[in-house]
Amino acid sequence: MFTLHKTDEHTQARLGTLKLAHGDVQTPIFMPVGTVGSVKTMVPEDLHGMGAEIILGNTYHLYIRPGLEVIREFGGLHGFVNWDKPILTDSGGFQIFSLANQRKIDETGAHFQSHLDGKKIHLTPELAVEIQETLGADIHMVLDECTAGTATYEEARRSMRRSMRWAARSRAARTRTELAQFGIVQGCMFEDLRTESIESLTAMNFEGYSIGGLSVGESKPDMRRITKHCCDRLPQDKPRYLMGVGTPLDLIESIAVGVDMFDCVMPTRNGRNGTLFTSKGRVNIKNTRYRLDKGPLDENCKCYTCQNFSLSYLRHLFMAKEYTGQRLLTLHNLTYYLELIREIRAAIAAGTFHELLKHHQGLWES
Amino acid sequence: MFTLHKTDEHTQARLGTLKLAHGDVQTPIFMPVGTVGSVKTMVPEDLHGMGAEIILGNTYHLYIRPGLEVIREFGGLHGFVNWDKPILTDSGGFQIFSLANQRKIDETGAHFQSHLDGKKIHLTPELAVEIQETLGADIHMVLDECTAGTATYEEARRSMRRSMRWAARSRAARTRTELAQFGIVQGCMFEDLRTESIESLTAMNFEGYSIGGLSVGESKPDMRRITKHCCDRLPQDKPRYLMGVGTPLDLIESIAVGVDMFDCVMPTRNGRNGTLFTSKGRVNIKNTRYRLDKGPLDENCKCYTCQNFSLSYLRHLFMAKEYTGQRLLTLHNLTYYLELIREIRAAIAAGTFHELLKHHQGLWES
Repeated sequence: MFTLHKTDEHTQARLGTLKLAHGDVQTPIFMPVGTVGSVKTMVPEDLHGMGAEIILGNTYHLYIRPGLEVIREFGGLHGFVNWDKPILTDSGGFQIFSLANQRKIDETGAHFQSHLDGKKIHLTPELAVEIQETLGADIHMVLDECTAGTATYEEARRSMRRSMRWAARSRAARTRTELAQFGIVQGCMFEDLRTESIESLTAMNFEGYSIGGLSVGESKPDMRRITKHCCDRLPQDKPRYLMGVGTPLDLIESIAVGVDMFDCVMPTRNGRNGTLFTSKGRVNIKNTRYRLDKGPLDENCKCYTCQNFSLSYLRHLFMAKEYTGQRLLTLHNLTYYLELIREIRAAIAAGTFHELLKHHQGLWES
Repeated sequence: MFTLHKTDEHTQARLGTLKLAHGDVQTPIFMPVGTVGSVKTMVPEDLHGMGAEIILGNTYHLYIRPGLEVIREFGGLHGFVNWDKPILTDSGGFQIFSLANQRKIDETGAHFQSHLDGKKIHLTPELAVEIQETLGADIHMVLDECTAGTATYEEARRSMRRSMRWAARSRAARTRTELAQFGIVQGCMFEDLRTESIESLTAMNFEGYSIGGLSVGESKPDMRRITKHCCDRLPQDKPRYLMGVGTPLDLIESIAVGVDMFDCVMPTRNGRNGTLFTSKGRVNIKNTRYRLDKGPLDENCKCYTCQNFSLSYLRHLFMAKEYTGQRLLTLHNLTYYLELIREIRAAIAAGTFHELLKHHQGLWES
């Protein structure tokens, strides 16, 4: 399912191809997030236009609304949302941790109430597989227990080991072998727990491995340290997916240590909130300096927003809270991320990725 | 500026062409509303795709934000919002009436505070012309005094006569004669006041005439009665614009008595609120009956929404309050209105408009 084409000679950056049920995906890849069945403000035509190859949906959200009865009617999520390229779904573990009410976790799984209507749900590892196989996601995640960032070593070990038992149950529950299933590495900020988690998961021979429990408030050096520790120990011939990460520099630095896949709400959420990523660095569209600026948001960007509108107009739409502004800014940010990913792939192919890394370290840390 | 091509033999429906600074517009016409510089959730590419020929901007909103300094930098509203076809602006009278704080009207004009920052503004008829000429609208409105729907005859007469004096000052203040200026007929629900207003305005020889003070809460029969009364007395060789109207049936019935131009937030606002207009009548997207409906919103519609998505998915996006849903529903409603207007024109040309009128009376009143 995964073919590794090249590993960079100056860094651990990799070029690969994922062969998935709905088509091939080149790695490294960034996946726009369509939490409840749409990438906020976007339509599939926009995503095709910016070259998106795979998008993400959320099991927790889609299970509680619209629910599996609706999804089944369409033969899966692809038909429902009209997206014919690959989809990845997360297992819901993180959303139970961050959204659900009356949450109680035991060895069987998670008991919680829907944040929408209070309905009681018992999500087991087996049910998470069943839901995601019904969604028909090209890649789905095992259910894991999210551990608080403040966990002690003992708590982190107990939680990680439970997630590993759940991973084994998820692997056993799988029925649709044409769809890929990824295990999730846990263990908080403790290297030896991460190593143990990797050893447990690789013994189960998943189609790929996610690095979970990062981008949850830890420091950047901690995130980089654990990411590198995991990549150094994960099998070379399987894809590595760093969940919920991150800024453009996070992507680049993680790719440099061997990560292949990313998802993050940052380009969409920051777009709606007026923080834009450009070839010159961050732009806060609220800044008064753009009030009369007739230039584009990013003169190096080919997106509809940058080709058609001025900073002044975009600032006006944002200040006036116009929907059109949020849409145009989201379109730009996603285009920036996907174009960056393509530049990164080209640089790895050309053997110049270490130069791109250096350029972006200067750009984003200044 | 206006060429009348045909008047229907069964009704008073008219076919015409408006020659404006930024191009020709065929009438009857519906103008999507871009209050503060964007048609909410839409971009110009969408509007071109649905065949929009002219859009509307609001003087009050654009004057208080972004302000004329910004608009001047772009040489007018067209450059600022990147729309190269005609634009019509209203004068701000209605917004002062409905939005502004600390409103006080005297013979000089309107004193009020911006609803955004409390800034004091003194909007005179002359300033309204200056603002709209700076905006560079192909068609602009004179400043008028909006009269409350509950006005007595005496109040309505006093207010209408002031609006007529303001219209004369507006006509005198005009400097850019390549842009059209419309007078606004007032007089509430009183026929003789409407007649007097029309006589006053036609003596000033405007490029067109708006019918104001309707669609402000009066009954449909009252609206139809006054619209017909005005159209019967307005000059045949000038366009008639019924401001702020209305439903599809309002458009058709008003066209039947001789109206040429319309604007209304209904397709955009109702789209965002989940009420859709279709060839089969109204659709409330929240309705549970659509939960599993795999069919399109309107099988006779060629818009991106109807060509790509199911009622079930659109309902889901709406219930989940997804931006993408509001965008897709707005796109459909505007497409419906503009396609309806094209059908109406074709029917008038073919001499079958009275049949179309009858069909829609059955469709919308059932």
